[in-house]
Amino acid sequence: MRFSPLFWPIRLKGSTIYILDETRLPQKLAYIKARNYKQACKAIKDMKTRAAGQVLLVMYIFLQLLKQGKRKELARVALTINKTRPTLSFKSLTDMVLGWSKNRVPLEKCLLGFLEGLKYSRIRQAEDAAKLLKNNDTVLTHCNISGLMPLIADIASKQGKSLKFFATETRPYLQGSRLTAWELRRAGFDVTLITDNMVASVMAQGRIDKVIVGADHLALNGDIANKIGTYQIAVTAKYFRVPFYVICPPPSDKKSGKEVKIEIRPDKEMLEYQGLRLAPVGAKGYYPAFDITPYKLITKHIRMEIKR
Amino acid sequence: MRFSPLFWPIRLKGSTIYILDETRLPQKLAYIKARNYKQACKAIKDMKTRAAGQVLLVMYIFLQLLKQGKRKELARVALTINKTRPTLSFKSLTDMVLGWSKNRVPLEKCLLGFLEGLKYSRIRQAEDAAKLLKNNDTVLTHCNISGLMPLIADIASKQGKSLKFFATETRPYLQGSRLTAWELRRAGFDVTLITDNMVASVMAQGRIDKVIVGADHLALNGDIANKIGTYQIAVTAKYFRVPFYVICPPPSDKKSGKEVKIEIRPDKEMLEYQGLRLAPVGAKGYYPAFDITPYKLITKHIRMEIKR
Repeated sequence: MRFSPLFWPIRLKGSTIYILDETRLPQKLAYIKARNYKQACKAIKDMKTRAAGQVLLVMYIFLQLLKQGKRKELARVALTINKTRPTLSFKSLTDMVLGWSKNRVPLEKCLLGFLEGLKYSRIRQAEDAAKLLKNNDTVLTHCNISGLMPLIADIASKQGKSLKFFATETRPYLQGSRLTAWELRRAGFDVTLITDNMVASVMAQGRIDKVIVGADHLALNGDIANKIGTYQIAVTAKYFRVPFYVICPPPSDKKSGKEVKIEIRPDKEMLEYQGLRLAPVGAKGYYPAFDITPYKLITKHIRMEIKR
Repeated sequence: MRFSPLFWPIRLKGSTIYILDETRLPQKLAYIKARNYKQACKAIKDMKTRAAGQVLLVMYIFLQLLKQGKRKELARVALTINKTRPTLSFKSLTDMVLGWSKNRVPLEKCLLGFLEGLKYSRIRQAEDAAKLLKNNDTVLTHCNISGLMPLIADIASKQGKSLKFFATETRPYLQGSRLTAWELRRAGFDVTLITDNMVASVMAQGRIDKVIVGADHLALNGDIANKIGTYQIAVTAKYFRVPFYVICPPPSDKKSGKEVKIEIRPDKEMLEYQGLRLAPVGAKGYYPAFDITPYKLITKHIRMEIKR
């Protein structure tokens, strides 16, 4: 199986963490070096990595601490990680690690075991998604599911199913354009970019068979938080009766999406793009980075099972 | 009443047409000089002007012809105009003018009379729209309604009704950002920009009371063609039970939206922005410039009545 660089965007070499800088893609495939947890947390805040990359990075931060002989700092580092961004449930990840640190099993073993489990759970999710697709299906996706989309296409292809893709560009960060269209093309699959406001148009034309998106947060009732724009696609898919599938992380402890805190980012990030001013000087914007899609709009949750 | 420069973006001085270059806004308020109908038609093709500006320009092209003593070329010029862009019903406009040319009333008088009527019909539409709004309403709009939005706010304000606005940026040309947010701010009104994918999010938060959009084409059954993304907002507004109002041009002769030809523009226009590459090299895009919103999603048509 060939993996997209986005499938496993974090590495640890010696005691340095290498973080794929997703903001520089597709122009450049470059890694940031994080020599300590502060540099790594800054990469999360600056959205250098996101989605699955954030989960991996949390684990690698703890592995780095162990390599640096700083086991005593576990709890303090966990607090810093929890404060980076609000919508992904960092606390449930760090609580899990702090829990392991009280076990008899060495913490390093737990962390490496979790990462190994995560890898196979994610491949399993791609297999589950591929099962839901038919030959000649056209799949619409939004933002980027950390390398899973080319993996799904690859698995489907081995089952004799040819897929086509539509990717929304995903303003304001353009992850759909910069990451999803890039990784699908790179792997040889047919992908067409649309702007975020074209979803109803292409669905009305009958060009979309299924929607597959990821999620940054899964609440206990099945509500999900995902990249801003997901909710609108779900509403539109419901209207046009297009199945809407979500590849989910493990559930958090939140009862419903209402309890999930939505990150509001600086409006500058949507009023400018790579230094180019898009809006009139002095204009104000509103930039919620995520939205909550209620469970009733989700045709099927593709859940993650991690065996430990 | 103060008018936005977008309300009447075309002027005729001597025999030169001045066309507000909407692609240079908000950085620069500049006019293109069209000394003949070919230059004027090129400005339509290149989207230098749009919406109401296109209707005005057609009339000014004929006035220019008369000033240049080229009355014999009316029919040939009409054909060139009809071919510029497919979605606005240029033919019904030029057929109307060719019809007038066979009247006893001088053609120039008909053209000037139509323009005068158009001006007051549009002000009347703004008044009709203002009637539908309440004090403290927040109105969401998409793309740009050629100067009508600040006019609506102005009229409402004189009735003691304070309005707030959300404007979608309207990818790929960003008319919502460059034109609507610009003209509303310029006139002193409160406007917040969102990306096109945030509509469900802000509606779910209860922040939008009404949607008002324009239309480039009104079919006989009430279906409208408007800037790409309108349909998706209509679907989302229906889901959240937010009233969806459309400021319409006079109806065409098409029975329904199905008969309206949708312009497909070069994908380069969405994969690049002002020379900055947004998408991976080699990626393909799909760019329908308009979509059709079916009448059943429209709460109320704000119709145009032209008295001649």
